[in-house]
Amino acid sequence: MKKILFLFILIVFSLCEIGLAQTGQVTVSSKLAGTAHSSPYNMYGAQYPFIEADNCVTFQFYAPDAQKVQVAIANVPFDMKKGEDGVWTYTSEPQDYGYHNYWMIVDGAIVLDPATDGFIGYSHDCNGFEIPDPNGDFYDIKDVPHGDVLIKNYYSTVTETWRMAFVYTPPDYNKNTNARYPVLYLQHGGGEDQRVWIEMGRTNLILDNLIAEGKCKPFIVVMETSAATKPGEAPPERIQPAARQQTQGIQPAPRPRMRFSFDTYAELIVKDLIPYIDGNFRTQKDQSSRAMAGLSMGSMVTRSVALPNLDKFSHIGLFSGGTLAPDQISDKSKVKLVFMSYGSRERGADSVKEAAKLLNEAGVRSVSYISPLTAHEWQSWRRSLREFAPLLFNN
Amino acid sequence: MKKILFLFILIVFSLCEIGLAQTGQVTVSSKLAGTAHSSPYNMYGAQYPFIEADNCVTFQFYAPDAQKVQVAIANVPFDMKKGEDGVWTYTSEPQDYGYHNYWMIVDGAIVLDPATDGFIGYSHDCNGFEIPDPNGDFYDIKDVPHGDVLIKNYYSTVTETWRMAFVYTPPDYNKNTNARYPVLYLQHGGGEDQRVWIEMGRTNLILDNLIAEGKCKPFIVVMETSAATKPGEAPPERIQPAARQQTQGIQPAPRPRMRFSFDTYAELIVKDLIPYIDGNFRTQKDQSSRAMAGLSMGSMVTRSVALPNLDKFSHIGLFSGGTLAPDQISDKSKVKLVFMSYGSRERGADSVKEAAKLLNEAGVRSVSYISPLTAHEWQSWRRSLREFAPLLFNN
Repeated sequence: MKKILFLFILIVFSLCEIGLAQTGQVTVSSKLAGTAHSSPYNMYGAQYPFIEADNCVTFQFYAPDAQKVQVAIANVPFDMKKGEDGVWTYTSEPQDYGYHNYWMIVDGAIVLDPATDGFIGYSHDCNGFEIPDPNGDFYDIKDVPHGDVLIKNYYSTVTETWRMAFVYTPPDYNKNTNARYPVLYLQHGGGEDQRVWIEMGRTNLILDNLIAEGKCKPFIVVMETSAATKPGEAPPERIQPAARQQTQGIQPAPRPRMRFSFDTYAELIVKDLIPYIDGNFRTQKDQSSRAMAGLSMGSMVTRSVALPNLDKFSHIGLFSGGTLAPDQISDKSKVKLVFMSYGSRERGADSVKEAAKLLNEAGVRSVSYISPLTAHEWQSWRRSLREFAPLLFNN
Repeated sequence: MKKILFLFILIVFSLCEIGLAQTGQVTVSSKLAGTAHSSPYNMYGAQYPFIEADNCVTFQFYAPDAQKVQVAIANVPFDMKKGEDGVWTYTSEPQDYGYHNYWMIVDGAIVLDPATDGFIGYSHDCNGFEIPDPNGDFYDIKDVPHGDVLIKNYYSTVTETWRMAFVYTPPDYNKNTNARYPVLYLQHGGGEDQRVWIEMGRTNLILDNLIAEGKCKPFIVVMETSAATKPGEAPPERIQPAARQQTQGIQPAPRPRMRFSFDTYAELIVKDLIPYIDGNFRTQKDQSSRAMAGLSMGSMVTRSVALPNLDKFSHIGLFSGGTLAPDQISDKSKVKLVFMSYGSRERGADSVKEAAKLLNEAGVRSVSYISPLTAHEWQSWRRSLREFAPLLFNN
């Protein structure tokens, strides 16, 4: 009888509360700028996080018996205040435009709010919210031809495992069935994976819009995960999730091995991923039609993969991930573009203009970009992609 | 200085702990049956949930200052035990084969473990774990031709919003570029959305494998979300996430409106989704080449959409969602198949065989199926799809 009642309650609730996540992609974000509204990543009907008209964000979280609840916004914890109903509340300072990760800390435990969609970041699942940018229509969904995002499983001979890639094909890919397209290999940051350039980066929408305006050539984008180990090569030990220690100021335990190398991933890209993509999509296979870029740690990955393989890559993008000096490029004639960018609030922001100047003087075409009033966050990288894409495959 | 140190720590951690989620799709699950292993949905390097060789599951969760921590497995809470290091532990009874939702309850708050991938269910994000089925190789990834999973944004004139659909195209879709394919519209359950039939259901792998074995005709699958409101039509009020109340035994507050109707969604499917799919994919557009099926509440959706539109749908599947009686079908000559299934542990399991008999006697081809030793869970629905797919579009 208890089970039947339970099932009945389950069914009734299921009917009234229907999940609808991943709605961020289909929200016209820029039109919400300056209005008070629920964040687009909230579950259907969930009001919080609530974006105030001045870009402050109000969080609410139900934890009736907790002693202390904090909300961590982009890894900085803020104390919430408990109400009589067991609901804790916090309203933040105004936030920068764009996507931000957050999570809850309940009595010392880093946890997620189940009423908001989950996004990979900081090496674990995170909650997210979005501050609309009045000039953010470049990543709005619009009534223009749309490319496809494909989830592709493929087998790697290097790792001896099946792996997953996200692939964007441009709007005319399925119409011009004899056309071949250049390819950008686009790399996530530390603690992320192949999904982020679609889910937070809005790569598909940014390129759809640029292509519709005639601002960039149509090309394919391949997004994979740089975590790659060969058989017998152990993944890093994990004692506690890193951010959990970090947020609480716990000294991390010594690690038996630290893997800073992307050699296995570089081998996988050359031996498995490029042949798979070239074998299964209508690509242009020459070096001048292949680019690689990445954000943050993905810039390090890009250096590790592209620089030793200049017979395969011609265009390089480093978003919030340092610079390149002329003497790091073994054969300058091979490199058609080095693009380097930062958010203006980042420490590296003052370095890219000079680095681009030195590269240009050394005969390597280089462009730098500073995203105004953004930090080490997605709005810097969405804008970087918008600036980078028009420079690709046009020389 | 503090900021620089913070960035340094962030970078170091980012390098050692690289997220790798959604690996479930690329794990050969059946080969893990009977072995002790970490669940495939755990973040890269995260050990727990840990699947014991006897299908008990060990959970660990770090909550140093909490008074009480529980793990809820498929919505049933179990008390965890605190260790001196602030880590709480619980080992479950043996679990049924297949995917199971779980979450944590920390001092009364329903929260998620950030070290495991997030999945939509119960109207909110959930954590998941997977018990390998020794006979589960029908949803393993194999070295057979693979179809595509596409994430498609399209505009609905009914809701006046952009919406998102997941679309599976069979392995030969891009090779036989003149071939046209029948279409199955496949519906999620209550509190879920368009992602679940890929992420938990493994629809793409199940169909790839069936097609490779010559057991079913290649067809397209369209997965959309049944939450749909017209402009001005308010979504259901949300006071607290339903499961949060449910798990804690809190009596739900009265709701100002309860929306049990799928009329708007039915209108959307007929006016927007079918024309979009038929206009953008090489489909067979006749009634005999269009099917609809759903799990749990999705069976109710299937009835609401297909039965009033028998000029558009010919094959019907109800997975863990009740039965159809002959007098519910207005024009029996239009219906080529009614498939009804349940897990053997479900209350409805004893009803489908008799219901199928009555339909067959009334001249409607009907097939029933009982999934052995499974409940109202994904293993019932993976198996239901395996049984249903070969019956489609072959008469």
